[in-house]
Amino acid sequence: MRIVVLAGGIGGARFLRGLKRAVPDADITVIGNTGDDIHLFGLKVCPDLDTVMYTLGGGINEEQGWGRTDETFHLKEELAAYGVGPEWFGLGDRDFATHIVRTQMLGAGFPLSAVTEALCDRWEPGVRLIPMTDDRVETHVAVELDGERKAVHFQEYWVRLRASVPAEAVVPVGAEQAKPAPGVLEAIAEADVILFPPSNPVVSVGTILAVPGIREAIAEAGVPVIGLSPIVGGAPVRGMADKVLAAVGVESTAPAVAEHYGSGLLDGWLVDTADADCVERVEAAGIRCRAVPLMMTDVDAAARMAREALTLAEEVRAV
Amino acid sequence: MRIVVLAGGIGGARFLRGLKRAVPDADITVIGNTGDDIHLFGLKVCPDLDTVMYTLGGGINEEQGWGRTDETFHLKEELAAYGVGPEWFGLGDRDFATHIVRTQMLGAGFPLSAVTEALCDRWEPGVRLIPMTDDRVETHVAVELDGERKAVHFQEYWVRLRASVPAEAVVPVGAEQAKPAPGVLEAIAEADVILFPPSNPVVSVGTILAVPGIREAIAEAGVPVIGLSPIVGGAPVRGMADKVLAAVGVESTAPAVAEHYGSGLLDGWLVDTADADCVERVEAAGIRCRAVPLMMTDVDAAARMAREALTLAEEVRAV
Repeated sequence: MRIVVLAGGIGGARFLRGLKRAVPDADITVIGNTGDDIHLFGLKVCPDLDTVMYTLGGGINEEQGWGRTDETFHLKEELAAYGVGPEWFGLGDRDFATHIVRTQMLGAGFPLSAVTEALCDRWEPGVRLIPMTDDRVETHVAVELDGERKAVHFQEYWVRLRASVPAEAVVPVGAEQAKPAPGVLEAIAEADVILFPPSNPVVSVGTILAVPGIREAIAEAGVPVIGLSPIVGGAPVRGMADKVLAAVGVESTAPAVAEHYGSGLLDGWLVDTADADCVERVEAAGIRCRAVPLMMTDVDAAARMAREALTLAEEVRAV
Repeated sequence: MRIVVLAGGIGGARFLRGLKRAVPDADITVIGNTGDDIHLFGLKVCPDLDTVMYTLGGGINEEQGWGRTDETFHLKEELAAYGVGPEWFGLGDRDFATHIVRTQMLGAGFPLSAVTEALCDRWEPGVRLIPMTDDRVETHVAVELDGERKAVHFQEYWVRLRASVPAEAVVPVGAEQAKPAPGVLEAIAEADVILFPPSNPVVSVGTILAVPGIREAIAEAGVPVIGLSPIVGGAPVRGMADKVLAAVGVESTAPAVAEHYGSGLLDGWLVDTADADCVERVEAAGIRCRAVPLMMTDVDAAARMAREALTLAEEVRAV
């Protein structure tokens, strides 16, 4: 079975770990979000790709969900002592190595997709991880800050400001000119099923879909496209998805997110059992819907969610 | 009193610490060797400048004489896990910060001299530290390796090979085209005394003197130029200076090094008490010479050496 998954960071990575456990023999291609990539200290940092790679490769800090296990922060401490920031972005000593290797390879002319493949040679995530694009896309968030309207990098909004001010707009700068990375459209075309994990529908899955050609390829793939709601009981399971959903005019409910993706894209949608009363509304929008437990408390729970998604895919296929 | 010191790494740095203790009110300008600078992992590393900066700024690993105190090596471990080397060069997590800040500033267009000044803003070494040049100079060593004659970077010769094969030639590549960094010639012209600490006469002091204009400025400064022998009893006090002295046809003895500098440059030369029998030979070469203890066992010993050097300078001046 060939599965394509559009993944953001923590939610996507944890779902993928469950998916691998659920179908260990599946051929999984992950299209990773790069809209929250950021240049820090002269280095190219790809938080979502790394979270997927570290999580599936056994190097993730389990507790926080991002960054490396057994991590130290001496380099960052020293940068701060030099007065060099930003201090709000947590780069550990071990994590820095990934960004140094990546930056060196990019500098040597390799595209991000080739670099990601090389990094994965070490981590052996058990999936094929492809960035959505080799081109630069940078998600900016329009906010009002100190009485001034300005656009800040997504990481500044998310990590520094902790989404404490309303997002007035979310713009994947550069997406319009970006091309899908080599292998992205091919993987979609050859997929037996396409999954949207409970990642952020705006700044993760939404950014991937903003790369011209990807949304169209998924819609035209002719295979079940199944999503899992990141919203449970009217609130994001983790993160602050509600803040950026508001910016695109979508209410923070499981059915609203399904409608936002739309029946032109989505064939099936899993909502949490807490949102069982929304099933009817989603199905009315032309999207097959089931209510199942969606809390990824551990890998087994994520695996059960993955199985439910694949079961729903079979239902869709059988119609 | 305005003192100019031509410094390499460990020996120069430890002598400077003694000099500061000996004459705390002196205005000290250090012209630092950059010939052993190296690009590693996309970063500009300046081992000698950093050793001076860390030693005088209180951040040095006292035991090894280079690198940072309380250091960890997680980043390097991870680079090795990615298969990215060289593994033989010891860059610690804290140390990396210096190279990242330096590389970023150089990338932003600042010359190395301005970058060094900025780094020293943090370390407050109590001296003015200027790289010998803002231009790229790279000391290469010609060796026969695996039956093949080739040139290796000085660090590869020194750190990886541990000078285990004979150096057939030592070439400061780029030196001929290099210009002294801003402030170098001015400091020499305004100096009351110029000191050559017990640094390597070939790859440290020699490289500095290879930058066109510096040797001439020192010779014409009209002030005492005093050196301290890095060779005691026929062997280098530390390091492997004998290996590179052989490459330039100089025997590893205290008087031979003095003669190598020559009376056109050097006015006074301190040898260790173990080499007291060489005083006559040095003086016969037109260089005033004294035998005093030259083992820098601690800061006090280094301070005594500095005082002896300044005393010899006064003797020279009085002639």
